[in-house]
Amino acid sequence: MWVRKRSLWWLNKLSPFQLIALFYLSAVTISSILIALPVAHQPGVELAFIDILFTAVSAVSVTGLTTVSTVDTFSTTGIFIIAFVLQFGGIGVMTLGTMVWLILGKKIGLKERRLIMADQNQTSFQGMVRMVKEIVIVVLLIEFIGFLILGTYYLQYYEPAQAYLHGFFSSVSATTNGGFDITGQSLIPFKNDYFVQFIHMVLIIAGAIGFPVLIEVKQYLLKPSHKKIQFTLFAKLTTFTFLVLVVVGALIIAVLESNHYFAGKDWHEILFFSLFQSVTTRSGGLATLPISEFTGQTQLFMSALMFIGASPSSVGGGIRTTTFALVIIFILTFARGESNIKIFRREVHNEDLNRAVAVTMMAVITCFVAVLTLTITEPYDLNKLIFEVCSAFGTTGLSLGITAGLSTFGKVILMLLMFIGRIGILTFLFTWKKDRKSKSYHYPKERIIIG
Amino acid sequence: MWVRKRSLWWLNKLSPFQLIALFYLSAVTISSILIALPVAHQPGVELAFIDILFTAVSAVSVTGLTTVSTVDTFSTTGIFIIAFVLQFGGIGVMTLGTMVWLILGKKIGLKERRLIMADQNQTSFQGMVRMVKEIVIVVLLIEFIGFLILGTYYLQYYEPAQAYLHGFFSSVSATTNGGFDITGQSLIPFKNDYFVQFIHMVLIIAGAIGFPVLIEVKQYLLKPSHKKIQFTLFAKLTTFTFLVLVVVGALIIAVLESNHYFAGKDWHEILFFSLFQSVTTRSGGLATLPISEFTGQTQLFMSALMFIGASPSSVGGGIRTTTFALVIIFILTFARGESNIKIFRREVHNEDLNRAVAVTMMAVITCFVAVLTLTITEPYDLNKLIFEVCSAFGTTGLSLGITAGLSTFGKVILMLLMFIGRIGILTFLFTWKKDRKSKSYHYPKERIIIG
Ligand SMILES: [K+]
Ligand SMILES: [K+]
Repeated sequence: MWVRKRSLWWLNKLSPFQLIALFYLSAVTISSILIALPVAHQPGVELAFIDILFTAVSAVSVTGLTTVSTVDTFSTTGIFIIAFVLQFGGIGVMTLGTMVWLILGKKIGLKERRLIMADQNQTSFQGMVRMVKEIVIVVLLIEFIGFLILGTYYLQYYEPAQAYLHGFFSSVSATTNGGFDITGQSLIPFKNDYFVQFIHMVLIIAGAIGFPVLIEVKQYLLKPSHKKIQFTLFAKLTTFTFLVLVVVGALIIAVLESNHYFAGKDWHEILFFSLFQSVTTRSGGLATLPISEFTGQTQLFMSALMFIGASPSSVGGGIRTTTFALVIIFILTFARGESNIKIFRREVHNEDLNRAVAVTMMAVITCFVAVLTLTITEPYDLNKLIFEVCSAFGTTGLSLGITAGLSTFGKVILMLLMFIGRIGILTFLFTWKKDRKSKSYHYPKERIIIG
Repeated sequence: MWVRKRSLWWLNKLSPFQLIALFYLSAVTISSILIALPVAHQPGVELAFIDILFTAVSAVSVTGLTTVSTVDTFSTTGIFIIAFVLQFGGIGVMTLGTMVWLILGKKIGLKERRLIMADQNQTSFQGMVRMVKEIVIVVLLIEFIGFLILGTYYLQYYEPAQAYLHGFFSSVSATTNGGFDITGQSLIPFKNDYFVQFIHMVLIIAGAIGFPVLIEVKQYLLKPSHKKIQFTLFAKLTTFTFLVLVVVGALIIAVLESNHYFAGKDWHEILFFSLFQSVTTRSGGLATLPISEFTGQTQLFMSALMFIGASPSSVGGGIRTTTFALVIIFILTFARGESNIKIFRREVHNEDLNRAVAVTMMAVITCFVAVLTLTITEPYDLNKLIFEVCSAFGTTGLSLGITAGLSTFGKVILMLLMFIGRIGILTFLFTWKKDRKSKSYHYPKERIIIG
């Protein structure tokens, strides 16, 4: 007992945010070792250390940016390893860690619960343990249904074993918003198969809309009387913002490309191309067309969408949808000269606004510095660098095809961005400060989750 | 009397911010007419309407972006007209308007005083009239000294009449941060004349550091006992930020170009090139080298410097130095988990922070939308468009040479940015709302000026 206590004493000195960073770093290390195993590679393939590390960071952060072609580099074993890492990264190291504790029959202490809270940005202690269970069950259920539908549907394209392997990998990669593909060219082979695209969009949204929303929807659907369930302000705001971004994003992409990539295409092609590419910027990372053939203005617009990213407490990154919504509401309220901010008949906490603002400012500065640094070391056009930086920060994984060609230094910059994007810039910010009795954990009123 | 009252009754319905916008629009109209006069042009020159308007907006907003060469297009009369418009724009339409009222012996009412306050962002009623007088005296004094020094010094380069014309125009253009030149190539002819550069830097800084700082420095210098003068928090913060930006900006420019434009150059050339180009991004707009020969990374970095801009209550634009400082302080304080923001042993008002944050967010969104729009209509590279947009928003006037080649639509976008940059995004924001008994005008504590 004494030895164990002694060997772990330093863990208690870390703040929850520092612990999360530490756990993610451990996950990257373990994933790197797994990915480096010779059995994970295709015969004859040799991976450089930087590419192993990049793949591990990209998989743990469920980004999907790659410096090597997944299908040409990894064996079937390797593909299962990546799917496992995506799963692990998507559901969150903390959540899984808690599950292990649960399975081992241990009681979850205050410190551990706070850890999960910070990771999933939950501000209420109650129902934490129950929620973690629910997260895992819901995600696995969604993935299993996706696997069955896609695997069975793929029988028309592949041999049975291949069909279900593709179905399994697609379902995991879409639901965790992993963005990895084993077709070698994302979803482009299915650009005319709207059913495959539709299923992928549903799975991506399920992963990116945020676990709390999924849980609330589940509760709503399972309750005998629907009237008893009151959706939280958070669920309403994040879902509303998410859907507005998807619809407005698709519309603007359709307009921007109407005289370019979409010229001469049928309405249903334009609809699915626009919609899928809009959905995928939330953090999916799969694409049904080569984004590099879009015009510069569409790429810049998609960069902004990726910068905003997915909902908090989801598998996605970026500044998060709620943060974006609060910033917009803040500006509008300020311009109208009002001081209290109200949405959906609730008043927003000032501290939440400060968080939203701090997250956004910090993100803008971080991405700007990253882009500026890359312009020094990389020979690519500015719009390509902006796109890749936003894709990494939003843990989206879309690429204009330059990631493989980056210098080692450039790859390190993208890895840092994926890491920051995944753990959230707020966590990243708080990693550097001491845990001060964590004032922010006991608010009486209803709160909005930021970043 | 009755007729006059009736014809002006609608003026009282406007908020101070709307009045400022209205006055600036009037100034642009009058300037356009003056610039369109045939006597202002070189023989045989015909100016398109859009170019007349662009020159007027650029001069009123003291930006200095041009779609035509000033020296090839305008006669000596035209040059004097532009110098007059720069003067008018630089000191501020409101300030001059108040001077006219003073000269006519009229009492300045509450409404008019509020107007000047909003324009110069002054939050205290006291000493307003006195301050306006001081502004004009100080600026004219600085310009006159600049004219004498430069005109006399230029005798070695030009005929006496030409020397003093150049001295006059240079002094006005530098002090008002007008950014116009009559050499046809900015200050590049003086790239080896460090005396000319030094005088220009001093004049640019005098205009961009903010009138309140100049007044306080003057008071400090004129008082018999120096100990009695306590510099305001605003003066300390804006001067500190301004100087940090100049020094750090010069250092980073020197590093970014060390292996490119500065390769093989002497230390004193690098020192003056870096320092002048850093100073000029505050809002000067003159340059001692062709900025288009800088590398992409330096141009991107200078874009950020121009976006920040000059001090509030100065001749410059952008989000302003104090806004930038408060945002940085806000992020640092937030990251450290503190709630009160203190600088120079004073506490910062929350409302000022909200202003700083709102201004910055709004500016980022405005510039992003402008860049995105220009990528659709203009055939230039993204980094060139970003540079030109930041130059217009910061009313800096530096150019990578694409302004003349923009479409009419593109020119309109830049004109809007110069207008917003000059009147300040806060004024622009408030132009759209009704004057609600102007709560923000009577704070008891010491305030920081934003935007
Ligand atoms: K992704
Ligand atoms: K200027």
